[in-house]
Amino acid sequence: MALPSPSYTITLRVEVPASQRATSTVVGAVADAGAAVTAVDIAHSTHDAVVVDVTCDAVDGDHSDRIVATLDALPGVRVLKVSDSTFLMHLGGKIEVSTKSPIRNRRDLSRAYTPGVARVCEAIARRPEDARHLTIKRNTVAVVTDGTAVLGLGDIGPAAALPVMEGKAALFKEFGGVDAWPVCLDTTDTEEIIRTVKALAPVYGGVNLEDIAAPRCFEIEARLRAELDIPVFHDDQHGTAIVVLAALVNALKVVDKKLPEVRIVVSGVGAAGNAIIRLLKAQGAQHVVAFGRSGALRAGSLSGDPHRDWIAQHTNTEGFSGSLADGLRGADVFIGVSAGNVLTGRDVATMAQDAIVLALANPTPEVDPVAASETAAVVATGRSDYPNQINNVLAFPGLFRGLLDTGAKEITTEMLRVAAVAIADVVGEDELNSAFIIPGVFDPRVAEAVAGAVRSVSEK
Amino acid sequence: MALPSPSYTITLRVEVPASQRATSTVVGAVADAGAAVTAVDIAHSTHDAVVVDVTCDAVDGDHSDRIVATLDALPGVRVLKVSDSTFLMHLGGKIEVSTKSPIRNRRDLSRAYTPGVARVCEAIARRPEDARHLTIKRNTVAVVTDGTAVLGLGDIGPAAALPVMEGKAALFKEFGGVDAWPVCLDTTDTEEIIRTVKALAPVYGGVNLEDIAAPRCFEIEARLRAELDIPVFHDDQHGTAIVVLAALVNALKVVDKKLPEVRIVVSGVGAAGNAIIRLLKAQGAQHVVAFGRSGALRAGSLSGDPHRDWIAQHTNTEGFSGSLADGLRGADVFIGVSAGNVLTGRDVATMAQDAIVLALANPTPEVDPVAASETAAVVATGRSDYPNQINNVLAFPGLFRGLLDTGAKEITTEMLRVAAVAIADVVGEDELNSAFIIPGVFDPRVAEAVAGAVRSVSEK
Repeated sequence: MALPSPSYTITLRVEVPASQRATSTVVGAVADAGAAVTAVDIAHSTHDAVVVDVTCDAVDGDHSDRIVATLDALPGVRVLKVSDSTFLMHLGGKIEVSTKSPIRNRRDLSRAYTPGVARVCEAIARRPEDARHLTIKRNTVAVVTDGTAVLGLGDIGPAAALPVMEGKAALFKEFGGVDAWPVCLDTTDTEEIIRTVKALAPVYGGVNLEDIAAPRCFEIEARLRAELDIPVFHDDQHGTAIVVLAALVNALKVVDKKLPEVRIVVSGVGAAGNAIIRLLKAQGAQHVVAFGRSGALRAGSLSGDPHRDWIAQHTNTEGFSGSLADGLRGADVFIGVSAGNVLTGRDVATMAQDAIVLALANPTPEVDPVAASETAAVVATGRSDYPNQINNVLAFPGLFRGLLDTGAKEITTEMLRVAAVAIADVVGEDELNSAFIIPGVFDPRVAEAVAGAVRSVSEK
Repeated sequence: MALPSPSYTITLRVEVPASQRATSTVVGAVADAGAAVTAVDIAHSTHDAVVVDVTCDAVDGDHSDRIVATLDALPGVRVLKVSDSTFLMHLGGKIEVSTKSPIRNRRDLSRAYTPGVARVCEAIARRPEDARHLTIKRNTVAVVTDGTAVLGLGDIGPAAALPVMEGKAALFKEFGGVDAWPVCLDTTDTEEIIRTVKALAPVYGGVNLEDIAAPRCFEIEARLRAELDIPVFHDDQHGTAIVVLAALVNALKVVDKKLPEVRIVVSGVGAAGNAIIRLLKAQGAQHVVAFGRSGALRAGSLSGDPHRDWIAQHTNTEGFSGSLADGLRGADVFIGVSAGNVLTGRDVATMAQDAIVLALANPTPEVDPVAASETAAVVATGRSDYPNQINNVLAFPGLFRGLLDTGAKEITTEMLRVAAVAIADVVGEDELNSAFIIPGVFDPRVAEAVAGAVRSVSEK
């Protein structure tokens, strides 16, 4: 059963008949309805009634309705208003544009704007590379989407995708000190997206592609990488690949196995699966078998899709043919970036001793993590309510911090690899165990460790 | 001769032999070289020398070189470093992206980002108009340029235009509380600019077109107005028109003449001239004659350019034919948005009694303002070093503040007109005189007065 969550926090304004027990009656009823009460305030009081604001975490909209009904059913009690704090937080958006120095007088104005600014413009016209020093290009990244594959919501369009891109921009700033700006494009045409991002590029020192549907996202990324002189990152692919490799590096330490020796099963041959397999191989993995909906990919089974075919040609050297459940038998590592509940605990039980399960489908993992942990030694998911949350926020802020610091013009596989190792290395030997293979998302050491690793590779 | 300006402020780090008079020697020499000293600091001191930082306003780069040479020529004195404070102010850009509320813990994260943000996305997918409440669209404007007509510098390209667009964004925030973001496009193709701005539009509540060369700017503006559901403003046209009308309204009060009765000569039939004439007519002007490079435009003289031809058909009812100097004879008002020094004081002397001269060409006005004021009653320019500076910053922050506050979908001529009247009305009767027809750019009353006027029209 779903639990009350801070992502669904509501404040109920409730009128209650005045009595010594007014507040406790309301709080008790809300708690009995299954909500987690986090705050109670008396809003105001009259001779015969008090108005109480009760803030609580609920499960979802239906649960919120049930809480209101429970309160309304109490004698003399009336719910006046329900406000949703997630919506309150989003009012007017989550980011803003700030000036770095105030413009208070003629002296400020003549330097920040006309006439002084003309000299800065002329300097950049003479030496275009000075834009990296004299403008926001130095620290600014475009967060680009077409709104076609947003979270688990699918094709909701560019306007509805904006809250996610604002949130991403907020994370870029809070975790990496990077200025990121949402670019939500009202087009789903591959060529037009490419053309538009190229047209916008002068302002930006990097591009983060986000929530664009496959296979379009591959083409857009490849073309922009080739045609722009700033780094282009597809978070759904490369961000996921970094954090998966980081988790795997530490999980292997826990079970004392070596990456080149283990048998790895990957479920999912989309954007993320492709990028994960490439990065695993860069780190030295030798035995990988990947599974799509119709079973194992192998050298013979070409599809015409270049990304699937790359996987088919570079994995499964033994030519295994069969289903995911069959392929899992005896494997050391399962990595899932596919769909919820494609495996059971019984399937996991067929894996090798000290198995590692990284089941990232969201919100429902490929296998129930509790069932998997009955036999697997290490289990990780994308969820925050189980141990070992594998979250992209560990990767992208520090990665771009390092890229911008060095003025990098592209992202190499080596940068992704060292970023992953840096995340893994944040977890000290004294901290490492099967329930702590990856740092928490609020660990302040992570972004700087990743940035430092990227800088060291980028400056070579 | 040009004067030292705060837009060219330099700091000289100078080593001087230790003595009681070390600092005064340096300051005296800098002043003798014609610079305006604004600060002196002892940076550090050794047994036999002191290092002094002298900050001063210079005229230009040559002047800066002469100041250095003057100091280096003094016995034992050595200039160690010259830093330009305008460039220092631009390091890393002038604006940044800030988060409105911090993301410090899991509770914050689950509301600003996943999973809570999904509910906000779904709400917007259901009711797209909610993007105006729940995202940055509510308060955000795109400042769009292709870098082809930047200040007086011309076609310097999108990267070199960025410092101006950042400055504009800073002014939007400081004066109007508007979040503005630079969009510097790496294309000069009209259709591609239109397509790109339309693709970007979901994030923005308005578009400010800036420094795009004519005649492309007309087509881009007209098409975007027709095809977008957010207001589109071309500052070089409409911003200028607003402040010109504001200045004229008050100048006419000073000389006690009525707009419908005065004879107005306009020099310049480009973007600004066209918009000014339209706004003058909206406010009731009856007698306008406009001059291009080859003389007066009149109904017969069609050119094929629709904007010039609109002017030809809607001005010069008397069919005047001749040069600008000829047309000026007996006129009450001169408005120049053309080029420097096209008129002399003698030309202005042929105007009617109590003439008004608004000479906006930058940096050199159409007529020397000192010469013009020998006979004209009111003289205004675009420059800050003469009285009556006509500056677009009086218009655009308040205008967009009002548009965003009401969620306006377009800009009407009536909005522009009431904005102009609001700016004029900020100057009280007790303040109004021939040297103060328009409020100063730092007058805090202006933006709110403009916003209020625009809101009152927009909400009707």
